[in-house]
Amino acid sequence: MDMARETARLFDRMRERRPLVHHITNYVTVNDCANIAICAGAAPVMADAIEEMEDMVAIAGALVLNIGTLNERLVASMLRAGERANELGIPVVLDPVGAGATPYRTETARMLLDRLEVSVLKGNAGEVATLAGSEAKVVGVDSHGVSGDLLSICEDFAVRSGCTVAMTGPRDFISDGARSFIVENGHGMMEKVSGTGCMASTVVGALVSGKEDATVETAAALAAFGLAGEHGAREAGGPMSFKTALFDAMDGLKVTELASEARVTRL
Amino acid sequence: MDMARETARLFDRMRERRPLVHHITNYVTVNDCANIAICAGAAPVMADAIEEMEDMVAIAGALVLNIGTLNERLVASMLRAGERANELGIPVVLDPVGAGATPYRTETARMLLDRLEVSVLKGNAGEVATLAGSEAKVVGVDSHGVSGDLLSICEDFAVRSGCTVAMTGPRDFISDGARSFIVENGHGMMEKVSGTGCMASTVVGALVSGKEDATVETAAALAAFGLAGEHGAREAGGPMSFKTALFDAMDGLKVTELASEARVTRL
Amino acid sequence: MDMARETARLFDRMRERRPLVHHITNYVTVNDCANIAICAGAAPVMADAIEEMEDMVAIAGALVLNIGTLNERLVASMLRAGERANELGIPVVLDPVGAGATPYRTETARMLLDRLEVSVLKGNAGEVATLAGSEAKVVGVDSHGVSGDLLSICEDFAVRSGCTVAMTGPRDFISDGARSFIVENGHGMMEKVSGTGCMASTVVGALVSGKEDATVETAAALAAFGLAGEHGAREAGGPMSFKTALFDAMDGLKVTELASEARVTRL
Repeated sequence: MDMARETARLFDRMRERRPLVHHITNYVTVNDCANIAICAGAAPVMADAIEEMEDMVAIAGALVLNIGTLNERLVASMLRAGERANELGIPVVLDPVGAGATPYRTETARMLLDRLEVSVLKGNAGEVATLAGSEAKVVGVDSHGVSGDLLSICEDFAVRSGCTVAMTGPRDFISDGARSFIVENGHGMMEKVSGTGCMASTVVGALVSGKEDATVETAAALAAFGLAGEHGAREAGGPMSFKTALFDAMDGLKVTELASEARVTRL
Repeated sequence: MDMARETARLFDRMRERRPLVHHITNYVTVNDCANIAICAGAAPVMADAIEEMEDMVAIAGALVLNIGTLNERLVASMLRAGERANELGIPVVLDPVGAGATPYRTETARMLLDRLEVSVLKGNAGEVATLAGSEAKVVGVDSHGVSGDLLSICEDFAVRSGCTVAMTGPRDFISDGARSFIVENGHGMMEKVSGTGCMASTVVGALVSGKEDATVETAAALAAFGLAGEHGAREAGGPMSFKTALFDAMDGLKVTELASEARVTRL
Repeated sequence: MDMARETARLFDRMRERRPLVHHITNYVTVNDCANIAICAGAAPVMADAIEEMEDMVAIAGALVLNIGTLNERLVASMLRAGERANELGIPVVLDPVGAGATPYRTETARMLLDRLEVSVLKGNAGEVATLAGSEAKVVGVDSHGVSGDLLSICEDFAVRSGCTVAMTGPRDFISDGARSFIVENGHGMMEKVSGTGCMASTVVGALVSGKEDATVETAAALAAFGLAGEHGAREAGGPMSFKTALFDAMDGLKVTELASEARVTRL
């Protein structure tokens, strides 16, 4: 399979569907997630009241759970929405922001993985390694100080968890245990902006709503988002003008560009 | 009455007053609301703790209630602040974000309309039609798939609810039952940015603090905000650079421009 | 001491440390705080669940408490995190947003000052004067209608409270009672953007993590942030393009520029 063309095809289909992506997410980067969803071609909804969890997720194409500013109330809503999504066959993406930074985050992420059928677990190296039980040290919510074979961590954890595991960083690793991919799109400026990890999860949510193949869809999402970062960086004078350009580039990303510039490799 | 000149006059008066607009709003677009208030010439305050609702609203010129990410705690604060605003004669604007998407949103918006004297109900077509009891289907929080005569829906609902009803979209309809207006300012780019609906409600809040005529003030607010969108779109390369330009244009909007470019028509 | 060179030295050291700044803050400007931390050279973490307060603050270099959208749950978390920070010798910065606007804010800020050892209290003139017991009138959260000798208010309150007191405005006053400084960096455009006060507190948090001298570090932080504002204003067309440029300028600020352009005066 030509992965760049497959990426382009999946992205194009997503735009045709304009999927509603239900987020239960943090209050730091929530606006960025809403806007990147729109720029990618999806429709965002952010809702976390337990009273409406089952109704909201039922009209969504995917559910994105992000524990960036978790609390007891949000966790209860995540469980309720996740269980309903599972019943309805709606894909669930989990972004375990800050897993490893505190026991509360690590344990909550593990509990969500245990209790819900998560389609895609997407974190940075530290977060994924923590949940995989590797020796990893996470400082705050954005560190990557993880040693060991990153791909092996993803593969092993995918087998054990039954999820597609995506580990983002300078290179993104995606594995479902049986198949693994590397995505080499992206730009160093993405590390200088709060929320690019959360935004990536939003784009993954948009893509996996297609329910064709969550692993390939995740790789396609990370390639498309990374490519938007590359395009955005062309004209940026600093982190925040880059951020503006990233959104514009996501909106303007052409399917033909994806087909020629996506760098997704099956291992 | 020359509606463009009246729009300009009301906007100018608002800037002189620099009204404090108290928001109880969602965590997605709250920063946008704060900044559009400042750029319009008002002063924002976002506060939702029940302990301070009565004190905060008492020093405000208007109260904006936005149910974008409602929950039980916020709803209680909305009631408390709204009741106090009613006692003090402070105008209340309700933005029923996502009404129709879930019963919880629809019922909460209806309850707020029942329990409070709302000056202006401002939503998109789907939201307003839902609350009016029309046959409407709302997907997520930003759909406009509403059939039927939009203006009639506004007029009828204004009569029944006693509010000024504003339905935003490519054209904005505003009615209090006795009088109706169409605002034709705006730009298609405004649909590509999360939060323009919420920002519009903020500007409505700023204008209705004048307590001259909520219906005309609402039309003036939507014209001014729409015109800022038109000006912002002149130089935008994509949704996010447009968003930046929209704020700058709101800040730079001249009263003379409003007087010549506002497109407000009384029907 | 050459205060400009000292400012440059402290800022350079901060960037080398890349301190984690733990925020318990409002949902209005939280994204701005996260990004200004990154642009300044620090690492932000926003976390407010009481379950993880002790763990999170323990890995941080400083704790920033901002009451912009306080509520009972957040206040409990602030106390828990603050007490642990005090035990561990981690500096605490308090930004009493809106103190004076409502009794709830004023009393909460006072309670936090009483119960915690706050290193730096940083507010605008109205907020500081309110807490100091001066005659002041605060409208909303951003007014500066304070009469009286601003510096005296800071000095007296620093002596009584045992904190470094920083009062921001067109000129920033910083005092610990024994020593006082004026910072004259900054730009009028900073008043046109929501969140610059909150961002300033973030930069103060980053600097005081050095634990050399909280008063000088606070002056250095306000000078660096103000200078970024000056640089950002060079190319701004309005408040929001200014905001974008402010972040880029913070990121691009050179130590040599600080050493020559910081305007910090010891009184």
